[in-house]
Amino acid sequence: DPRLKIFTLNSNPKLAHEITEHIGVPMGDCSVTRFSDGEVQINIEESIRGCDVYLIQSTSAPANEHIMELLIMIDALKRASARTINLVMPYYGYARQDRKARAREPITSKLVANLIETAGATRVLTLDLHATQIQGFFDIPVDQLMGVPILADYFQAKDLEDIVIVSPDHGGVVRARKMADRLKAPIAIIDKRRPKPNVSEVMNIVGNIEGKTAIIIDDIIDTAGTITLAANALMEHGAKEVYACCTHPVLSGPAMERINNSKIKELVVTNSIVLDEAKKSDKVTELSVAALMGEAIVRVHEHASVSTLFD
Amino acid sequence: DPRLKIFTLNSNPKLAHEITEHIGVPMGDCSVTRFSDGEVQINIEESIRGCDVYLIQSTSAPANEHIMELLIMIDALKRASARTINLVMPYYGYARQDRKARAREPITSKLVANLIETAGATRVLTLDLHATQIQGFFDIPVDQLMGVPILADYFQAKDLEDIVIVSPDHGGVVRARKMADRLKAPIAIIDKRRPKPNVSEVMNIVGNIEGKTAIIIDDIIDTAGTITLAANALMEHGAKEVYACCTHPVLSGPAMERINNSKIKELVVTNSIVLDEAKKSDKVTELSVAALMGEAIVRVHEHASVSTLFD
Ligand SMILES: Nc1ncnc2c1ncn2[C@@H]1O[C@H](COP(=O)(O)O)[C@@H](O)[C@H]1O
Ligand SMILES: Nc1ncnc2c1ncn2[C@@H]1O[C@H](COP(=O)(O)O)[C@@H](O)[C@H]1O
Repeated sequence: DPRLKIFTLNSNPKLAHEITEHIGVPMGDCSVTRFSDGEVQINIEESIRGCDVYLIQSTSAPANEHIMELLIMIDALKRASARTINLVMPYYGYARQDRKARAREPITSKLVANLIETAGATRVLTLDLHATQIQGFFDIPVDQLMGVPILADYFQAKDLEDIVIVSPDHGGVVRARKMADRLKAPIAIIDKRRPKPNVSEVMNIVGNIEGKTAIIIDDIIDTAGTITLAANALMEHGAKEVYACCTHPVLSGPAMERINNSKIKELVVTNSIVLDEAKKSDKVTELSVAALMGEAIVRVHEHASVSTLFD
Repeated sequence: DPRLKIFTLNSNPKLAHEITEHIGVPMGDCSVTRFSDGEVQINIEESIRGCDVYLIQSTSAPANEHIMELLIMIDALKRASARTINLVMPYYGYARQDRKARAREPITSKLVANLIETAGATRVLTLDLHATQIQGFFDIPVDQLMGVPILADYFQAKDLEDIVIVSPDHGGVVRARKMADRLKAPIAIIDKRRPKPNVSEVMNIVGNIEGKTAIIIDDIIDTAGTITLAANALMEHGAKEVYACCTHPVLSGPAMERINNSKIKELVVTNSIVLDEAKKSDKVTELSVAALMGEAIVRVHEHASVSTLFD
């Protein structure tokens, strides 16, 4: 369909090219650079009048740069008479600022949703939102894809014996349950408690992990504090070995040092966020979401169901 | 008035403190930092319920960071029940992307205006917009202050003899005229022409500059190409000496090298944009807009006229 156009911005061009190859369409022609003073300069080099545009950008670090690129590109597409502007956001930044945890905090996930709509987007396709409620922050359609099947398939192929899927906190139990269903495994939960104020946390483990191969699953791994402490606790409580996996490898600050020094045998992530050189490690395996996102784009474009992708 | 609260973000805290000192109110208590992954973290540390908040931020480089800080802070103030949210933006970034100069360009100045309104600002107070039309991009009140009086007063005090005010291009003639009126001086205009395609520009000078002290005035000096070429042309055509001035010292890329190597005797700028160490030079004089902006805040707060500040 000549009306289907795919463009990428600067957060994740490699994934974007994998997606266009998967679908079998050329990458849209545009340049997204900076003026001398650092302001974003965008030139769309082909007509997109009346087209359905799919714009690929993760709002990963540097989040503010990537968000502004996204908003300015949406503005340019709108003014160039695109028929629809569909954002493909493998990683949705600011998702953790999704409520007022303390007085007078911003709710930046909602702000970003408003900014995206104001700029002129007509639809969002994303992957594992930190909080599913963020879908409701938008008044345009939001389709959410899941990383669990990709992660589960990888571990399935490894043929590990006697596995248990571990949620690193209570918030992640639903995700762990989904993974466990796919791998026909039991689950366990890390139950952190602070017995008294100013006493350090105790890591209890709910569920049987002794002698088993534990696979910890989370949506985002950022500074890797939670996941490496969980891995060490699992080993201390008698797990045979510990794998970890997540959809979004934010991996900021001390993350790589912690992972490399931890008891984690292998960390499996997706390419929703680019792993730059500093984040590469023998311990880290990267899986591609290109086929998943490409398939979802085709379905959205054909007005077919996206959720049945996971049946 | 205890309902008047002033907050600053990270673009220009020194100017912001000068403004609060001028008005005689304390600086609002808030922390604007970054999470480990670079996302903006804001905590407003005092109640602002029912207050009129004045938020000081130039959207100078890094523009995207400063814009996102601004939007997130507006969101936090709105959710904390501020009565009004008044932006004090000494420099309005992206002002040069104010029209489609080529097909399929964004109009980022308009986008940023929409983002600011969407976030929840109720008023804008700014200084020398690159294009006065940007006021009309907003549906909330915009008051624009002028840098010319501050720059003119500085040159007045120098007691230079036989001066001529020079506009570096046709777009700047109105500004040069205002400066000339204040200094009771004649004007001249640099008239750039490209005689044939692929032939370099010729710098004509319209007006009499021979033996005179020329003062070039512009709103923004960015890479300083225009202004240094203009200065050299003026000297070649017989000017006695050349000063330059502008409101907004963007000074990116080769700017400082060009200025230091040029025939410009002194460059006079305001502190609408911070001059970091790399931009300091014996040739550059910085004037403060703190009194002007402080006075304007008081007038806005008292519902008094801002434009009469310039009578
Ligand atoms: N970029 C970020 N990095 C670390 N923590 C964050 C970030 N954004 C928001 N938060 C905080 O993370 C908490 C929410 O995380 P969660 O409980 O995992 O949903 C809140 O206290 C937020 O203020
Ligand atoms: N940050 C920037 N740096 C340099 N040029 C810009 C910038 N933003 C926009 N422009 C371009 O500057 C031109 C408008 O400048 P002007 O003619 O001075 O109003 C347009 O061609 C814009 O695309």
